[in-house]
Amino acid sequence: MRATTIYGERDIRLEEVPDPVLVTGRDAIVRVAAACVCGSDLWPYRGVVPLRAPRRIGHEFVGIVEQVGDQVQKIRVGDFVIAPFYDCDFTCVNCRNGFSTSCLHGAAWGANDRDGAFADGGQGELVRVPHADGSLVATPSQPADALIPGLLSLADVMGTGHHAALSAGVTAGSSVVVVGDGAVGLCAVLAARRLGASRIVAMSRHEDRQQLAREFGATDVVAERGDKGVAIVTEMFDGVGAECVLECVGTKESMDQALRSTRPGGQVGFVGVPNGGPELPMRQLFNTNVGVRGGMAPVRNYVEELLPEVLSGAIDPGRVFDLTLPLAQVADAYAAMDQRRAIKVLLQP
Amino acid sequence: MRATTIYGERDIRLEEVPDPVLVTGRDAIVRVAAACVCGSDLWPYRGVVPLRAPRRIGHEFVGIVEQVGDQVQKIRVGDFVIAPFYDCDFTCVNCRNGFSTSCLHGAAWGANDRDGAFADGGQGELVRVPHADGSLVATPSQPADALIPGLLSLADVMGTGHHAALSAGVTAGSSVVVVGDGAVGLCAVLAARRLGASRIVAMSRHEDRQQLAREFGATDVVAERGDKGVAIVTEMFDGVGAECVLECVGTKESMDQALRSTRPGGQVGFVGVPNGGPELPMRQLFNTNVGVRGGMAPVRNYVEELLPEVLSGAIDPGRVFDLTLPLAQVADAYAAMDQRRAIKVLLQP
Repeated sequence: MRATTIYGERDIRLEEVPDPVLVTGRDAIVRVAAACVCGSDLWPYRGVVPLRAPRRIGHEFVGIVEQVGDQVQKIRVGDFVIAPFYDCDFTCVNCRNGFSTSCLHGAAWGANDRDGAFADGGQGELVRVPHADGSLVATPSQPADALIPGLLSLADVMGTGHHAALSAGVTAGSSVVVVGDGAVGLCAVLAARRLGASRIVAMSRHEDRQQLAREFGATDVVAERGDKGVAIVTEMFDGVGAECVLECVGTKESMDQALRSTRPGGQVGFVGVPNGGPELPMRQLFNTNVGVRGGMAPVRNYVEELLPEVLSGAIDPGRVFDLTLPLAQVADAYAAMDQRRAIKVLLQP
Repeated sequence: MRATTIYGERDIRLEEVPDPVLVTGRDAIVRVAAACVCGSDLWPYRGVVPLRAPRRIGHEFVGIVEQVGDQVQKIRVGDFVIAPFYDCDFTCVNCRNGFSTSCLHGAAWGANDRDGAFADGGQGELVRVPHADGSLVATPSQPADALIPGLLSLADVMGTGHHAALSAGVTAGSSVVVVGDGAVGLCAVLAARRLGASRIVAMSRHEDRQQLAREFGATDVVAERGDKGVAIVTEMFDGVGAECVLECVGTKESMDQALRSTRPGGQVGFVGVPNGGPELPMRQLFNTNVGVRGGMAPVRNYVEELLPEVLSGAIDPGRVFDLTLPLAQVADAYAAMDQRRAIKVLLQP
């Protein structure tokens, strides 16, 4: 089959690799129907996170089950399935507590699982899934093509935006600020609206993203950043800041923006992968009682809640995909996101 | 009147100072019935926080109102009142949001208020209170002497323990670990029990404090710290750690203990004043989804909830006071706490 390997900075190659095979009785082999490039894939691509050796890449995919191991009970050959951006058994204590990203038996895509068997990356034609009954969620029937972007968003960005909102404590009537206008930030706007936030400020400097943010439910857009951005947002909310701030970037600057836009006693929900820092300033948190909560989003735990709304069209997070390319052009997909020509690129094997 | 001034490391003096007078119409003058020494007072006392100049000290007191300004409406001369460890108007947006420690017009004891008028320290005979109707809560009648330690605890330690528990999200059935066995840590145990925690581990190495922790509701005591302490606590809770961990110390080591004792997706509630750090490790928080929330406890917001239970005897947080000294011996009170001969010292002017 063909699969994507990252060789180094701005060096993405689609290569012929061996087809995956069933290794344990819990496995499934999934034929990828759609995959995509994640903002976090850009970090090794840009050389921000140095690469020690070439490795298979991609962690978001949906597809059709081709084979299952003899212990698989829920997932069947022919099912259309959504995979989260990580593998999990969905039965261990952490999974049951709602945090399947901390699964005691989980694995990452494009790496060996805990039994030492390889789980393929998502940007390829086939993937071996180590815990089919845990990781995969089957749709009730084969979805229409138009639904595939929305279903794919449940593998990561929509679930991650939802996690940002939950982590910040968004509930009916909340005042919300979203820092970051990438696919996750836009999904965070949608998630906040879905949870009933009464006012949602999207911090965005790009006109097309501002527009989508408004369509997703943002009531206000603030283009300014830094001190000026903080001053504007603070003023919008009683002069003290918003109750809930969703940090969807992961830099020192974005976290600072988030912390200073939050009112005393408010909460920052963060899902931006911390990019070599920052460390959080304890004294500032202590003085303001601003809480910080978030991390790797346990999107598998959210699929059952969000899936019906995607299928019914009540929410359409798939709109964050604004470019579709064949898998053969995976290198172009990276370049388009790197150069901000696309919010998020969908790949079709 | 006599009042306490700190002159430098281990240099505490009770001195004759001018009696306070009413400055604004919102003021009250309170005659202190009982005051105390706070763990945070030990920091300048020990030289950990360097002192730039001698200053009046003490921020916890209860007493009887002697004078009120002409705009004071709720508080009356003769009332027995509880003051929080800071002054607040209890009407601004932050106060109304539940965080009176961030009052837009508030002040600290032993310093000038925002109008430039002095608000006395608590370890003295009289205190000028800048916002009498905001800061002070009057008891329904003159309390019996036996209730005074409990009422005094509402000025800081009991409210602060309660804040640790709320910040960690303690609710009915929670699994809880309390790091720190000072007066605040012990009150945090009591607060967690009061909120319905099903299992409460007190981390304590001192036998007398272990005993009081058990009487306050701890179901388990762990004397070990560091890696061993983490291993024991983790094992007690499904091998993954507790849902809610209350950090009541404020050092790098205690915060590390707290973070590593928390299960993935759990929450650390912290009230220990960060002692020149630590900064929080973002990547660790991201990977574990452990949230961190807390800070300066808005104890004024908690008085109405906790006061009836102190008055009825349903809770007796005043038991953390294990030594009573006359105000004339304030220097001995500091020494007793510094040398850990007392958990908390009550001072009688």
